[in-house]
Amino acid sequence: MSATRYTYLGPAGTFTEAALHTLPEAATRELVPLPSVPAALDAVRAGEAAGAFVAIENSVEGAVTATADELATGSPLMIYREVLLPITFALLVRPGTELADVKTVTSHPVAQPQVRRWIGTNLPEARWEAAASNADGARLVQEGQVDGAFAGEFAAALYGLHPLVTDIHDAEAATTRFVLVGRPGRAASPTGWDKTSMVVWLGDNHPGALLELLQEFAVRGVNLMRIESRPTGQGLGNYCFSIDCEGHLTERRVAEALMGLKRICPRVRFLGSYPRADRRDATPRRAGSSDEDFVVAADWLARCLDGRGED
Amino acid sequence: MSATRYTYLGPAGTFTEAALHTLPEAATRELVPLPSVPAALDAVRAGEAAGAFVAIENSVEGAVTATADELATGSPLMIYREVLLPITFALLVRPGTELADVKTVTSHPVAQPQVRRWIGTNLPEARWEAAASNADGARLVQEGQVDGAFAGEFAAALYGLHPLVTDIHDAEAATTRFVLVGRPGRAASPTGWDKTSMVVWLGDNHPGALLELLQEFAVRGVNLMRIESRPTGQGLGNYCFSIDCEGHLTERRVAEALMGLKRICPRVRFLGSYPRADRRDATPRRAGSSDEDFVVAADWLARCLDGRGED
Amino acid sequence: MSATRYTYLGPAGTFTEAALHTLPEAATRELVPLPSVPAALDAVRAGEAAGAFVAIENSVEGAVTATADELATGSPLMIYREVLLPITFALLVRPGTELADVKTVTSHPVAQPQVRRWIGTNLPEARWEAAASNADGARLVQEGQVDGAFAGEFAAALYGLHPLVTDIHDAEAATTRFVLVGRPGRAASPTGWDKTSMVVWLGDNHPGALLELLQEFAVRGVNLMRIESRPTGQGLGNYCFSIDCEGHLTERRVAEALMGLKRICPRVRFLGSYPRADRRDATPRRAGSSDEDFVVAADWLARCLDGRGED
Amino acid sequence: MSATRYTYLGPAGTFTEAALHTLPEAATRELVPLPSVPAALDAVRAGEAAGAFVAIENSVEGAVTATADELATGSPLMIYREVLLPITFALLVRPGTELADVKTVTSHPVAQPQVRRWIGTNLPEARWEAAASNADGARLVQEGQVDGAFAGEFAAALYGLHPLVTDIHDAEAATTRFVLVGRPGRAASPTGWDKTSMVVWLGDNHPGALLELLQEFAVRGVNLMRIESRPTGQGLGNYCFSIDCEGHLTERRVAEALMGLKRICPRVRFLGSYPRADRRDATPRRAGSSDEDFVVAADWLARCLDGRGED
Repeated sequence: MSATRYTYLGPAGTFTEAALHTLPEAATRELVPLPSVPAALDAVRAGEAAGAFVAIENSVEGAVTATADELATGSPLMIYREVLLPITFALLVRPGTELADVKTVTSHPVAQPQVRRWIGTNLPEARWEAAASNADGARLVQEGQVDGAFAGEFAAALYGLHPLVTDIHDAEAATTRFVLVGRPGRAASPTGWDKTSMVVWLGDNHPGALLELLQEFAVRGVNLMRIESRPTGQGLGNYCFSIDCEGHLTERRVAEALMGLKRICPRVRFLGSYPRADRRDATPRRAGSSDEDFVVAADWLARCLDGRGED
Repeated sequence: MSATRYTYLGPAGTFTEAALHTLPEAATRELVPLPSVPAALDAVRAGEAAGAFVAIENSVEGAVTATADELATGSPLMIYREVLLPITFALLVRPGTELADVKTVTSHPVAQPQVRRWIGTNLPEARWEAAASNADGARLVQEGQVDGAFAGEFAAALYGLHPLVTDIHDAEAATTRFVLVGRPGRAASPTGWDKTSMVVWLGDNHPGALLELLQEFAVRGVNLMRIESRPTGQGLGNYCFSIDCEGHLTERRVAEALMGLKRICPRVRFLGSYPRADRRDATPRRAGSSDEDFVVAADWLARCLDGRGED
Repeated sequence: MSATRYTYLGPAGTFTEAALHTLPEAATRELVPLPSVPAALDAVRAGEAAGAFVAIENSVEGAVTATADELATGSPLMIYREVLLPITFALLVRPGTELADVKTVTSHPVAQPQVRRWIGTNLPEARWEAAASNADGARLVQEGQVDGAFAGEFAAALYGLHPLVTDIHDAEAATTRFVLVGRPGRAASPTGWDKTSMVVWLGDNHPGALLELLQEFAVRGVNLMRIESRPTGQGLGNYCFSIDCEGHLTERRVAEALMGLKRICPRVRFLGSYPRADRRDATPRRAGSSDEDFVVAADWLARCLDGRGED
Repeated sequence: MSATRYTYLGPAGTFTEAALHTLPEAATRELVPLPSVPAALDAVRAGEAAGAFVAIENSVEGAVTATADELATGSPLMIYREVLLPITFALLVRPGTELADVKTVTSHPVAQPQVRRWIGTNLPEARWEAAASNADGARLVQEGQVDGAFAGEFAAALYGLHPLVTDIHDAEAATTRFVLVGRPGRAASPTGWDKTSMVVWLGDNHPGALLELLQEFAVRGVNLMRIESRPTGQGLGNYCFSIDCEGHLTERRVAEALMGLKRICPRVRFLGSYPRADRRDATPRRAGSSDEDFVVAADWLARCLDGRGED
């Protein structure tokens, strides 16, 4: 039944599946691996699944561009949850293979920069090949097409492989951010440690447009957490921006900033307000940006309109 | 009866009185000259008059500081109307006096810079003395204490003097701005060519505070018309700003900008929204700053909160 | 001889003269009181004096507008020194006069707001009249034309009067700022606690012009100390700004900010870099704004142009 | 000989090779295909080639992240030339294959979004597989491992294939931007239609840091052409920005903006000033930003320092 079904970028044995299992409700959902991010999201759009669980940002490789682009286009979807998963790789081989036997290795292209340096040091002669996913790379090893696959250690059992080397990662603290996406609905209640995601298109070739966009946030004391430029597909030099800011749409500072963007930008897509996985109430807020400050100011304005405005 | 009484900075025969007579309702009011701006305003505060008519800005000499400071302090008052009056002076003398006889001249100190150059050219030996008002200067001439007074030509008849020279003014197009001030009440209805006045105090010695103040206006597409710094009396380096901006407090862009100021500044005093005397709908507005733009954005936000937000 | 002559706004017995005597070199100068700020400055312009000593800012009454306007127009002058003088008044009367006898009081108009409240409490029936200077007020008392004059206690002896009440001041810590002005020349050497003064004209009626002006300072980490708007005499709504910023023109951040103003504003007049009388090295500087930071960046740029630019 | 060798992202038959042949000097260079962007760039770093020719931005898929990241890290390189190439694909098949026979298709992952919609319409049942390059996809077809490859029509002859369908592209006007990269050296002379590339790192988690970065450009009248955020590999939330701005480093406005960035950012890498391939002198410049304006302002400042500064 679709109401209990979550799709995810498969196959089984990927980091995505491992991250999905950190959600308590995953235990009671039908988890359906699909071959691409668009496929996972389209199943939600078509009503065949209640949610799709996909990677959206990788601290080493940047935005998982397919996810960002799919959320920016097509019929609207919303983010309801995020999960952070530290990423380290194992080199999976067929039992009996030794390091000296490894001539070809594979991984998803996003994983490649995270293991590039390790390969250079430990397997300088090995040839890297792209796999459709890290788990698919494990399958290629299982089938004997490649000698080694970089994947999560948890994938070894699934494919009858041996984790020859574990804890491989180039950058310290590589983390991937995953999101649970659903059809548009009422946002989760504010928790006090929320973030809000959106996509904002800039207008015609106006040099100061990005500066103006950022000032809509700054003037209301809303801190940005992430800003990624993405091409709009309308020719070089045309961008939209995928933005995460602190706070929840039900907070007045956030609501006023988004209305400001809506007024000056040709297009704004709200992608949801949801709890931060790190549960931090981030950077200090600018004075005057709390909901109470907004209420006090609105009351004062009402009195001014009435001729009763004190200083 | 106080409801039909307007005070003004007297005595009779000043430019203030001439400007006051340009208001249609002046014909049906009891017009009471008082010796100082504070006296004229305090009569309104005390309920002894419905309005006070005072100069607030002179294109040659800048803010009439007494008015700006009186409006910024004491119990709140509001501006309901403005009048612009072009200013030219006549040199008033006792009948029979010729230019060569004029050894001493007088005027209000605010008038002095507007006749300074004329004096330098035409009466280089004459000594200038301060008078409490231009009309009071005429009285001093009448009494024989001074030889000539710079005042409005209309003051000649009042004091039995002769306008020896007329149309004296140093700068082109010297204009004085007068305002009709009353106790706080509902602002006049918006006309489409309105302005809004306020006094804004900056917080502690924060270098970027003025920049932030201006950005509250800029980000909502509200143009400033006038900004005057005034000392707060709390020591050198502490200022408040007397500001006129375009638009009416019932316009959303103006309301949101003022609420923004209220949140970030320790003190904001609303001084009224009223029609511009020049009836111009000034500089072009930034796109996205009309009331309709605000309504569209608020509706969009409401739909976002509801899970029905389209791009 | 003009090289040893300093003019000042007289007559003798004013706060200006008292402040002038705090300058060590005053002891060896011929000190010449003149009847107006323009007269004092014009003597310098004409080469008849080496310096003019005039009030420029009063913490209660704001800019002494005549000084600001005289420095902004006419042939250029420069500020070389500033003096801060705490201001309190004495009520000077003819010997034998008691408080109950005082029906009329006088002072310079700038002094009036500083004694207004004291008069209201202690001499509520007294009538205030304007004097050309506080010292001139003392003369009027001496001559019997007025009963009491508000002036510096030091003026009593000069006019044979008695300081009936001393230490009169409305605002706490009223302070007046005086400057020593000379013909343009090389600025005093930087001391580490300097300030720089200028007058900046804004261009045509461009709504964001003031914001842009402030950003020229902000982006180079130069804090503003004072900004006063002054009408240009070209009609209501046309302003120039009299500005003091931290730092010395020989500091690169200050030089770059002034060159930036020069490029975007129709007119900029440099009024000098000189030591702050309070000897404070004010608000904290933004990182990256020291001369050393500028040199490092310029060296890096030279290497970039050469193809040797490291990160 | 390395001085006449250019590396490029191979194999032969890619769009990169097609773009490289638009450079006049390509005719006299030894063109060496290498299997990855890092390999192509490292050959230049090692002195084994004079230049590397690689894609840097695709109007559909955004930055070619490997290129951006390789230029941001490792030993410095500089961009000397750019080439724009319109991109359309052909579906290459073995001679005799008809559309109904195509069950599997392949392309480089960057190409996939540009043909996604065409596949959905024309080959809804076909399975897409990643290839290491578009040309490598052609090779897979040649070897019979896949039925069809999306690649440039020019690749057909190279692999003995037939262009079954041509002019395939989802977005209008898909264009890829390529750059010729060399070891750091003196930049090409300014042409009047130049651009400047750089990578800028933001400091600690300072909410307004991006706004400040943009203001360094805006205040000098330098328009941005492209800004891409890239993760630094130091954990989620840490970004650097790959930026192209208008103008040449020898222009004063550009030089001053870069020095400003150098002062406020922990790290700035200059990547070169070179002619725009579109030869446009883009958006209008802000008044006051020409080299002549800078010279005039610098001369004025020198006179101010000397005491000869007129307005």
